[in-house]
Amino acid sequence: MSLTAVGSLAFDSVSTPFGERERMLGGSAVHFALAANFFTEVKIVSSVGEDFGEAEIDVLTSRGIDTTDVERVEGGETFFWRGSYEYDMNLATTEETRLNVLESFVPKLTDGSRGSETLFLGNIQPHLQRQVRAECEQSNFAGLDSMNIWIENERETLIEAIGEVDCLLLNDAEIRQLTGEANLTRAARAVLEMGPKIVIAKQGEYGAALFTEEFFFAMPGFPLEDVMDPTGAGDSFAGGFLGYVDKHRDELDEHTLRRGMAYGSVLASFNVEEFGTERVARLTEDEIEQRLREFRQITHFEI
Amino acid sequence: MSLTAVGSLAFDSVSTPFGERERMLGGSAVHFALAANFFTEVKIVSSVGEDFGEAEIDVLTSRGIDTTDVERVEGGETFFWRGSYEYDMNLATTEETRLNVLESFVPKLTDGSRGSETLFLGNIQPHLQRQVRAECEQSNFAGLDSMNIWIENERETLIEAIGEVDCLLLNDAEIRQLTGEANLTRAARAVLEMGPKIVIAKQGEYGAALFTEEFFFAMPGFPLEDVMDPTGAGDSFAGGFLGYVDKHRDELDEHTLRRGMAYGSVLASFNVEEFGTERVARLTEDEIEQRLREFRQITHFEI
Repeated sequence: MSLTAVGSLAFDSVSTPFGERERMLGGSAVHFALAANFFTEVKIVSSVGEDFGEAEIDVLTSRGIDTTDVERVEGGETFFWRGSYEYDMNLATTEETRLNVLESFVPKLTDGSRGSETLFLGNIQPHLQRQVRAECEQSNFAGLDSMNIWIENERETLIEAIGEVDCLLLNDAEIRQLTGEANLTRAARAVLEMGPKIVIAKQGEYGAALFTEEFFFAMPGFPLEDVMDPTGAGDSFAGGFLGYVDKHRDELDEHTLRRGMAYGSVLASFNVEEFGTERVARLTEDEIEQRLREFRQITHFEI
Repeated sequence: MSLTAVGSLAFDSVSTPFGERERMLGGSAVHFALAANFFTEVKIVSSVGEDFGEAEIDVLTSRGIDTTDVERVEGGETFFWRGSYEYDMNLATTEETRLNVLESFVPKLTDGSRGSETLFLGNIQPHLQRQVRAECEQSNFAGLDSMNIWIENERETLIEAIGEVDCLLLNDAEIRQLTGEANLTRAARAVLEMGPKIVIAKQGEYGAALFTEEFFFAMPGFPLEDVMDPTGAGDSFAGGFLGYVDKHRDELDEHTLRRGMAYGSVLASFNVEEFGTERVARLTEDEIEQRLREFRQITHFEI
């Protein structure tokens, strides 16, 4: 099994009430790949500038993540984001965004990336997501993430892209915004009618909820006393979920989806404990399994 | 076993995007008692005016709820609240509050109410909650609810009242406000240091979370497509939780608390399906058990 992820590689400068970091390795494809990599073989499709050095690539390749289709643009600079969080940590304030090489990014897939069974279309322009989806003909399970700017500015293309994937992963507020339905359950049903068989509402500290025509499943947030930096939590969730799903493609039933939600929650909960990729980059499989058991405990009751 | 609840009996006029009602039966003690009554014997301590008629009392007494200590004030009028909800249904806008007889309310307990094993101090002035707590010497498990106006205006008395109970039930935003801690897990720990052994954070559509020194437990919200009127959901939750706890006082362990959280969630989820007490007033035990099983399904995963 293998999993191709298209998305950003970035430098993030983040300040929270608990500290700040300059130009950390970040981006949706990075957080996604580091999480999914615990479960399956991951290939990244993206673009970076000359400022993206060996040290950054090493964080990925040293874990076996395939960066063949990360294009290095001569004379270009890597996508840069500067943001901050206030005390409640639920809302990021963007202070600076420089798209740089992503402004003219056209995903270029070699046969390796094109041949994955599972696909993650991270948060980029919807027409690029559609292009990658079309190229990956052998992929028969695709997840898509997006954000408010595409809902506002590229709504029709985004809805077409959503219609071509199996699973939409979006913040609950964005699912409401996309569908114009204030009630999340109705909003999720409206997305199911657009095409996907699965809708996952990411709910920040409250956890995540999964909707299909057949069943509903919800995970609470993990009770962390120290949330250092929420950046990338949604992509870590997607990486844990889709990584687990790809690993178990031969038994893709309700139980697999439930466990995938649990693993997504585990990876997201580790992601926010430290800045950027710091925590997930040194995470172990034992720690993942231990937290999975803790997650099961915190929702378990006997009738 | 029996459960004494002090709180308001009220007339509520509510408008939501799905309809409106004038002068429905409402109030914290009403929503609480109708929920708790499925599990145990409930006695209400409150005060009403002459406008509170036989029909309203009958809703309570016909279900066996003891209204002996509901004082009827001659020439007085019953507490009245008018509020509305916008499309997102998470935030009530208060348009009119007339305390009426509650302005000079002094709880008067007969031996029956005073002798209950379990006590619910609904959202009233903290010094009245303390008075009732002190009177009920035989009660060895007490829960307390409150709200932002007491946190802002009666903070010290409220903290003393909290120090005298076993379980605090509060909205998560109010737990943060009370403790000055933005992180809910830290905020809950700060409340545990005030005295209670149990802190329950009510999280609206996201469910509820329970914190003790020993364990954490969380329930998601039920995926309802039709939320008509959220008024009283928190009191229905408290009624389901404390009613179940009172019924199982002989086995008050972690499993009982977890199941109590589940029953609280079940009662709250029914409460919001229709206006005021409409849904819970005709609820059956079979429906409660059915939804309990559904709640278990939506959080259950095998490792």
